[in-house]
Amino acid sequence: MSTPQQAFDELKKLSKELTLVRSIDAVLGWERETYMPPKGEALRADQSAYLSGLHHRLFTQPRFGDLLAEVEASELMNDPDVAVNVREWRHAYDRAVKVPTELVEETTHTAVMAHSAWVEARKKIDFSVFQPHLAKLIDLTRRKAEYIGYEENIYDALLDEYEPGETTANVARLFRNLRAGLVPLVQAIAESPVRPRTEVVHREYAVDRQRVFAEAASAALGFDYLGGRLDTVTHPFASRFGPGDVRITTRWNPRFFNEAFFGVLHESGHGLYEQNLPAEHFGTPLGESVSLGIHESQSRLWENFVGRGRAFWRHFFPRARQIFPRVLDDVTMDEFYFAVNAVEPSFIRVEADEVTYNLHIMLRFEIEQAIIAGELDVADIPGAWNEMFEGFFGIKVPDDSQGCLQDVHWSFAGFGYFSTYALGNLYAAQFYARAKEDVPDLEERIALGDFAPLLHWLSEHIYSQGMRYRSRQLVERVTGQAPSHEPLMAYLHAKFGELYQL
Amino acid sequence: MSTPQQAFDELKKLSKELTLVRSIDAVLGWERETYMPPKGEALRADQSAYLSGLHHRLFTQPRFGDLLAEVEASELMNDPDVAVNVREWRHAYDRAVKVPTELVEETTHTAVMAHSAWVEARKKIDFSVFQPHLAKLIDLTRRKAEYIGYEENIYDALLDEYEPGETTANVARLFRNLRAGLVPLVQAIAESPVRPRTEVVHREYAVDRQRVFAEAASAALGFDYLGGRLDTVTHPFASRFGPGDVRITTRWNPRFFNEAFFGVLHESGHGLYEQNLPAEHFGTPLGESVSLGIHESQSRLWENFVGRGRAFWRHFFPRARQIFPRVLDDVTMDEFYFAVNAVEPSFIRVEADEVTYNLHIMLRFEIEQAIIAGELDVADIPGAWNEMFEGFFGIKVPDDSQGCLQDVHWSFAGFGYFSTYALGNLYAAQFYARAKEDVPDLEERIALGDFAPLLHWLSEHIYSQGMRYRSRQLVERVTGQAPSHEPLMAYLHAKFGELYQL
Repeated sequence: MSTPQQAFDELKKLSKELTLVRSIDAVLGWERETYMPPKGEALRADQSAYLSGLHHRLFTQPRFGDLLAEVEASELMNDPDVAVNVREWRHAYDRAVKVPTELVEETTHTAVMAHSAWVEARKKIDFSVFQPHLAKLIDLTRRKAEYIGYEENIYDALLDEYEPGETTANVARLFRNLRAGLVPLVQAIAESPVRPRTEVVHREYAVDRQRVFAEAASAALGFDYLGGRLDTVTHPFASRFGPGDVRITTRWNPRFFNEAFFGVLHESGHGLYEQNLPAEHFGTPLGESVSLGIHESQSRLWENFVGRGRAFWRHFFPRARQIFPRVLDDVTMDEFYFAVNAVEPSFIRVEADEVTYNLHIMLRFEIEQAIIAGELDVADIPGAWNEMFEGFFGIKVPDDSQGCLQDVHWSFAGFGYFSTYALGNLYAAQFYARAKEDVPDLEERIALGDFAPLLHWLSEHIYSQGMRYRSRQLVERVTGQAPSHEPLMAYLHAKFGELYQL
Repeated sequence: MSTPQQAFDELKKLSKELTLVRSIDAVLGWERETYMPPKGEALRADQSAYLSGLHHRLFTQPRFGDLLAEVEASELMNDPDVAVNVREWRHAYDRAVKVPTELVEETTHTAVMAHSAWVEARKKIDFSVFQPHLAKLIDLTRRKAEYIGYEENIYDALLDEYEPGETTANVARLFRNLRAGLVPLVQAIAESPVRPRTEVVHREYAVDRQRVFAEAASAALGFDYLGGRLDTVTHPFASRFGPGDVRITTRWNPRFFNEAFFGVLHESGHGLYEQNLPAEHFGTPLGESVSLGIHESQSRLWENFVGRGRAFWRHFFPRARQIFPRVLDDVTMDEFYFAVNAVEPSFIRVEADEVTYNLHIMLRFEIEQAIIAGELDVADIPGAWNEMFEGFFGIKVPDDSQGCLQDVHWSFAGFGYFSTYALGNLYAAQFYARAKEDVPDLEERIALGDFAPLLHWLSEHIYSQGMRYRSRQLVERVTGQAPSHEPLMAYLHAKFGELYQL
């Protein structure tokens, strides 16, 4: 017979082991995208599949459930740290054991082929190539959702994977309000006679100089290059191996300044969160990030609220002029600041500006719900997408590669993922507004190149908390307000009202 | 009840799993040396320790032994492929289970501290800092050897780890004969009035140009950069992750041509062996390399017999002149060829030339045997080393950092390792002599930049065989001669006799 304390200690040990296995796989995944030679693909797939299988076997062993039940029934649950870890272990364990292993394997297998089909469909601009694979993934996803279970809406079971505890109804309400505010703002900007000189960000920016500038900026924000690296990839991402080792990546475009620079700030935001999680809790939920939405709030906060802010460029524009000699001789700081904040309806989500970005997400949220609810047939996705897009943006989608084929997510059955991007924007606005209240000279300090007050505020209120609170709770505790569209709309109105003289 | 075939299939599956675990650890180890940021050290150590532990647990489970015994007692052993795999599984399994886990762990733990002490001792040039750690490692190594067991000599148990099946008595006989030939040759060279213009390899060779040249040369030999990479490290090595992914590394010295160039050819030799192992046997001994000695025979063959050969420079010297403009304008091919083959007694093994290199190994072989036999006290190692060194080379060791503290091997308890370096040289000479007999125009082809005949010959006779034969057997089968010093001495006499006009 073990005591509850022994059971808890064993759970911690298992949790640490599971975390190490995932962290090893993170190294393999990062290396695959950065340096692996082409012929290494098959072996790397075997290595990763082995680690996934090992993780699954370790996690779903009945012993894990038995230990959890023992701790849950004990007085140890009065310890808040124990309670948090047990809550999150239970959540993940239930999700893992409820879905039959065969279904997981079939989904993995289908996704591999679906991904290739998606790549081909996008290249050929032919949705029908992807359609049968997508249909199968939707069917498998619906079955998974049924196994997991839900109260109101089948889509809740999917959302819960990426934003634990959040519901479709909540998100729908937030998005409805946000859309009501965004559509007239987009309209007003479109009608404004004031336009930025966007050509200034499309001049020749030498890649080696871009790297120096972007690394210097991310280091100034607080990204620690002794415990991290910046590497070059095709599709940028951030990856945390564990304490002391967080990797960020980007791609370089010599003719478009924004792409790498704001990309690096974005990934640095993810990186700052990961670098400042409590290392002493590594291996347990208390040492992990809350959710994709909270994660995205940090990438967006550092990229947009900080990096696309006037205070930031007060400090960095003179440095940009030094680092890119002659390129910016005829450009003022105000013109540059306006150029990096140009608003323009566009077809591609990842290239969208701060104002129109969220409309891209809402469109996907609507379509996904209809797909999963069985209200939209797979064959009808392109038509529904294009119609809705014109309604949201007022422009016609020219072809499916710029429409429903543009995102990778569905090809790996990532239904429920998109909304976390827009939630991240809402949370970021709430956190940033609160940080400005708590630190009255926040932006004066930023204008001096001093990001420490902001980093300390975020570390104290968010990063150091690990998974102590679910996203909704965290937002409420930190900002005194439930998740809301209002701070984001207030921020956008103030910033773009001034820029476009609305 | 299982059939022997089922038992064999299960062994193959376990063996594949063990290989994958090791191959994942190889990725982590390579990344640690190439790209990992400094603060990632502790996490990486945890990750690697986890994989080592997993490998040990999987390998030493009694099930593995039971399955082995079942196959060994069956008629399956008449299948030569089965017999090879079972022989090697048995060899490794017995070594793994004979040594108690606690002893393995204590050795690992001691080695970590011993390594730091060795680094410090070397820096401070103070053997006493390393001495107590070395004493403990020697004690642990002796205990390990006793657990493993041996027939004649305790040192056999150690040698058997790196050169399976080879004995101290065999190696001692080979080395005695080799030494009897080498000492007068070194003497004759020292007395020759003919000297190379060594300054030509110490001119300014731009590192980016060196990289282009070295990569081009290794690709010409046959190293496949679609299934491999060359990266920069402090201590160069080659690492095979598995089929399709073999990594080589080097370090660059802008003022010494030989260091990176011949280093890359050396590691390419290891890489060519690994890239041409039979991929269909990956995960079993038939898909693995024979021993450290055979491995070193390939790095040495490509580095020295090919890369330091006259035929090679007939093709590559004109290219070197193009790639390093002006650097070699006043140098003839013959002068360059002589300069990269300069013979000079020196203190540091890794910098030694082809002739004196083996004397460095013999010295270590003698000292190690005395240490392990308990005939040489740890405190007396520096004295014994320096005395023996003067006897071998005729020069006085100035301090221990250029003497018994120069090599890393003892700090990880790698006793028995060194002799494989000299065995590699002997085998290389035997293989190369035989290849020239079988392919009469071998060196004319090399002089035309065509290395395919040699690579094909080596692939057919050595690489494609995996572990089918132990090293001694392999050398006998391929060359018709047991391991011998004669082909190496004949090669050295011919080459250096001509260069130094002896």
